[in-house]
Amino acid sequence: MDFTGKIAEFIRATRFEDLPEDVIKHAQRSLVDWLGVSLGASHDPSVDMLLRVCNTLGGNPQATVIGRGSKVSLAHAALINGHMSHVLDFDDTHLDTMIHPSATIWPAALAVGEEYRLSGKAMLTAFITGYEVETRIGRSVYPDHYDAGWHITGTVGTFGSAVAVAKLLRLDRERLVQALGIAGNQAAGLREMFGTMCKPFNAGRAARDGLMAALLARAGFTGSGQILEAPKGFCNLASPKADLGKILEGLGREFEIRTNAIKPYACGVVTHPTIDGIIALRNTHGLSGHEVKAIQVQVHPLVLELTGRKEPTTGLEGKFSIYHCAAVALIDGEALPTQFTDGRVCTEDVRVARSRVTVHPDPNLAKDEAVVTVMLYNGDRLTSHIQHARGSKEHPLTDDELEKKFSAQAAGILTHERQQRLLELIWDLETEPDVGKLAILVACSPYGSF
Amino acid sequence: MDFTGKIAEFIRATRFEDLPEDVIKHAQRSLVDWLGVSLGASHDPSVDMLLRVCNTLGGNPQATVIGRGSKVSLAHAALINGHMSHVLDFDDTHLDTMIHPSATIWPAALAVGEEYRLSGKAMLTAFITGYEVETRIGRSVYPDHYDAGWHITGTVGTFGSAVAVAKLLRLDRERLVQALGIAGNQAAGLREMFGTMCKPFNAGRAARDGLMAALLARAGFTGSGQILEAPKGFCNLASPKADLGKILEGLGREFEIRTNAIKPYACGVVTHPTIDGIIALRNTHGLSGHEVKAIQVQVHPLVLELTGRKEPTTGLEGKFSIYHCAAVALIDGEALPTQFTDGRVCTEDVRVARSRVTVHPDPNLAKDEAVVTVMLYNGDRLTSHIQHARGSKEHPLTDDELEKKFSAQAAGILTHERQQRLLELIWDLETEPDVGKLAILVACSPYGSF
Repeated sequence: MDFTGKIAEFIRATRFEDLPEDVIKHAQRSLVDWLGVSLGASHDPSVDMLLRVCNTLGGNPQATVIGRGSKVSLAHAALINGHMSHVLDFDDTHLDTMIHPSATIWPAALAVGEEYRLSGKAMLTAFITGYEVETRIGRSVYPDHYDAGWHITGTVGTFGSAVAVAKLLRLDRERLVQALGIAGNQAAGLREMFGTMCKPFNAGRAARDGLMAALLARAGFTGSGQILEAPKGFCNLASPKADLGKILEGLGREFEIRTNAIKPYACGVVTHPTIDGIIALRNTHGLSGHEVKAIQVQVHPLVLELTGRKEPTTGLEGKFSIYHCAAVALIDGEALPTQFTDGRVCTEDVRVARSRVTVHPDPNLAKDEAVVTVMLYNGDRLTSHIQHARGSKEHPLTDDELEKKFSAQAAGILTHERQQRLLELIWDLETEPDVGKLAILVACSPYGSF
Repeated sequence: MDFTGKIAEFIRATRFEDLPEDVIKHAQRSLVDWLGVSLGASHDPSVDMLLRVCNTLGGNPQATVIGRGSKVSLAHAALINGHMSHVLDFDDTHLDTMIHPSATIWPAALAVGEEYRLSGKAMLTAFITGYEVETRIGRSVYPDHYDAGWHITGTVGTFGSAVAVAKLLRLDRERLVQALGIAGNQAAGLREMFGTMCKPFNAGRAARDGLMAALLARAGFTGSGQILEAPKGFCNLASPKADLGKILEGLGREFEIRTNAIKPYACGVVTHPTIDGIIALRNTHGLSGHEVKAIQVQVHPLVLELTGRKEPTTGLEGKFSIYHCAAVALIDGEALPTQFTDGRVCTEDVRVARSRVTVHPDPNLAKDEAVVTVMLYNGDRLTSHIQHARGSKEHPLTDDELEKKFSAQAAGILTHERQQRLLELIWDLETEPDVGKLAILVACSPYGSF
């Protein structure tokens, strides 16, 4: 079966007019969320480092670095903004594959949209097309690919950005096939990097390399024409159990973006049901932390594998510590970026609280499910069973909650008025002829206005 | 065992003064060869395409594009020159791992050497250090990594360029460990791309990404500190049978570069003993092709796997067709770039000759061994047994043959006088204080002289 060709045809055929209204809404929500978490991380030291290296190399001033005053080349914008969007581990997730599609697609798409002054409709269509292809390729290799140690956002994400940019550049069928091949050939990223700057870098790298794949394909560059189905193509190399049928399953009829999960907490998504459970008990019973003797958590086994760090020493490590997440949920009733600073991770109260947490893997639980039991010194046992974490498709954030998350991240970077204009522009994106306006609004030092 | 740390210490400790004379000579020979094959491919259409995309993105004019008049950013120079050096499939090979180290290391090292005006000694030391680390990491994952379908020059090559650039930038131990981690995290490339523009692109990508890893590490960027030995680090993910002991085997005492094979023919290295055998019979018996009824070739099984294309339709495919290689060896007595053009692949005489070739895999033969039997219409059977191909360490090209290969590639790009000055500069590289001079000499339109 010519999976690569079929995907190329799907990319060609997708039209804004045919997209269901709720699917477009999901894309708008992911754009709000992506810009918010990117703004929130726009002054992270790792972003400074990336910018310094990119400035050493230089480039045409084509696309805006989010939350900054400078423009860089398309490739550097995709790299830096992609990195930025994943720094806080606060960006949205396709839960069935653990892919973070926005972090790989929006940075490349927005850069190209800004440079070529494309319409909001074109952007939304390109993003949705990239999302559907990326997550389906992800489905075909998940979970083995991820379990083996590949950072699926870095590997499969390269396809998503290539698809979105290729769609924006209106490549023909043959060039689309080539763009997919060139993209898959560059897929990279290891889970070994979790808890280091290379984790968000992998999202940026995927955004940049997918963009490069589309630009190269447009220029006539060639790769394999069968990247998805070849015996030693991407899918079979990515997973010995690759199920290629999943690539086309429901394509154009069902939309993976409907399952897009927006994070209420700035840490590994598998810790979220535990945080929900503890916050629920905290609020219901007015706990402050001192009265708690022990916390027992039952979760899907992947949770310990991904976030099993008992004693994190940096904020970044705290994001991958179910113990730290449980501790701040109890003490602060929150798991926002302020709970994952290097300082907060080392304070005495959370260290003590972490030591009281025990985690029990239970394969019968879903990834977004947790049973939390809190034991008090007075002998009480309080239990909360979270079936689906907040932010999941069963329990989505409301638009209002999403806007609040956005504003909390954008505060200190953009004025309140500018935040409002951005939100208005995004909620009305399909009428916008030039997304360059959006880029102007996310630049910190305004160098233009409309 | 802290393999990554030990490698970082080796990189730090390596000094030009301690390198054996013959090892330095091997590095000089590889530089001559690398520049020659790069010049020969410097006007390939795929190079134009890459340049077009890189020019769209722009960058500071830091490093020379070989055989061209322009300077581009360090990253683009590494990418384009790395690609260029592998376009003709004519660059040198570490036969034990099938890695093409020069194509991944020299482009990054020369770009940095040019920009920072580094000495010939620094360049040679950096190249040799990168070569030794790259090929040893290759040894630890070969052959399973390659057999699975990974393009080992693209994956492992990323380490080599990172090491060379990190050495040139004089990174400290901790930053070296980070550079290795950031490099390994970016490792990519599929053998599925063989016969397409993405094959040479993988060499360029490795050169660029290793360079980026070193620049990022210098800027303070972090990755895993255990990229080589972590349970889900590069080596274990690259091969389920990874043998990490090979990474440190003989390090600093034995030199892999002593086995560096310089290609006499512009095609897949595994076809070379076959070509040798046919050319030997052709010359000994004065064959012209018309008298030949059939050619039987016995070779290592990898040969058919890598170069089993029966009916190539492009020059690029011809390089991966043992049938085409055998045909041109018989008819032309050569296997140079002119034998691998789109036109030559389609001419009637080679098509007929290809159809007379049969190939028999024999696991008892080495990769650089072949038994060739030519059957003539007059009933004669002529046989040649090649134990080691020309260019291998047992049968190396002489300096004179290497210079002839260089000049054949550089002809039409550089004047004869300039070729001579380049060769003199390289043979005397250890006395050169500024390798920028070398870069000036490989620019097609001179924009400076000394």
